[in-house]
Amino acid sequence: MKDCIFCKIINGEIPTVKIYEDENFLVIESLGQSSKGHSLIIPKEHSKNILEMKTNNGSKLLDLIKKIGDASIKGLKADGFNVGINTNSAAGQVIMHTHIHIIPRYEKDGLNSWKEKQVSEEDRLIFAEKIIKELE
Amino acid sequence: MKDCIFCKIINGEIPTVKIYEDENFLVIESLGQSSKGHSLIIPKEHSKNILEMKTNNGSKLLDLIKKIGDASIKGLKADGFNVGINTNSAAGQVIMHTHIHIIPRYEKDGLNSWKEKQVSEEDRLIFAEKIIKELE
Repeated sequence: MKDCIFCKIINGEIPTVKIYEDENFLVIESLGQSSKGHSLIIPKEHSKNILEMKTNNGSKLLDLIKKIGDASIKGLKADGFNVGINTNSAAGQVIMHTHIHIIPRYEKDGLNSWKEKQVSEEDRLIFAEKIIKELE
Repeated sequence: MKDCIFCKIINGEIPTVKIYEDENFLVIESLGQSSKGHSLIIPKEHSKNILEMKTNNGSKLLDLIKKIGDASIKGLKADGFNVGINTNSAAGQVIMHTHIHIIPRYEKDGLNSWKEKQVSEEDRLIFAEKIIKELE
């Protein structure tokens, strides 16, 4: 897509540090990193976000997430990893071309996950009802 | 799996607030919530984490992520959502049964994503090489 930075990286118009490439996906080292070795899995076919992404390569994508996560643990001597997909700017999405963050995690790396607050059953029932209504 | 809290929820031994269920997946309101309506997609077949999860239902799982994310935006009037999968305790995984967080996001909800630090090309090449080595 014209003016899409990830499409330009995929097309080779903008240089990148490549980790893996196949017919459907490109994996690169992220320019901005939350931890050492933070990478991005980018489906080659342009979609604005996961809601618009086709899912016919779903098993291949999950296999690739596992492959990159596993290689990050082994190669970078990480202790785990986070998979993150941000949808819309309110969720921190900056580049409007679907991408999956693979963030290697190290014991005591100081990254603080979002706090979770215990929510009453009453409130959870209200939230569930609102979501369920849209599934019908 | 014995002593797995999510297996017990799937089997009906522990009550939950259910959003969706099919042959392969259960979706529930998370007990601890990072934002209003935070839900969890739980594959019914036990696996410790995504590295051990079978991927043959990959397209179905991605379709379900899209479905729950979209319904969360519409039903909860959210502005976006994060998809998160934590692998190993270093990455914040608490329940050792694979699950996918769907975290609705609201403009100015105050959740701060992890900071990203710009990393030099030299360092990115070093990280990439370490990961690539494990892919071979």
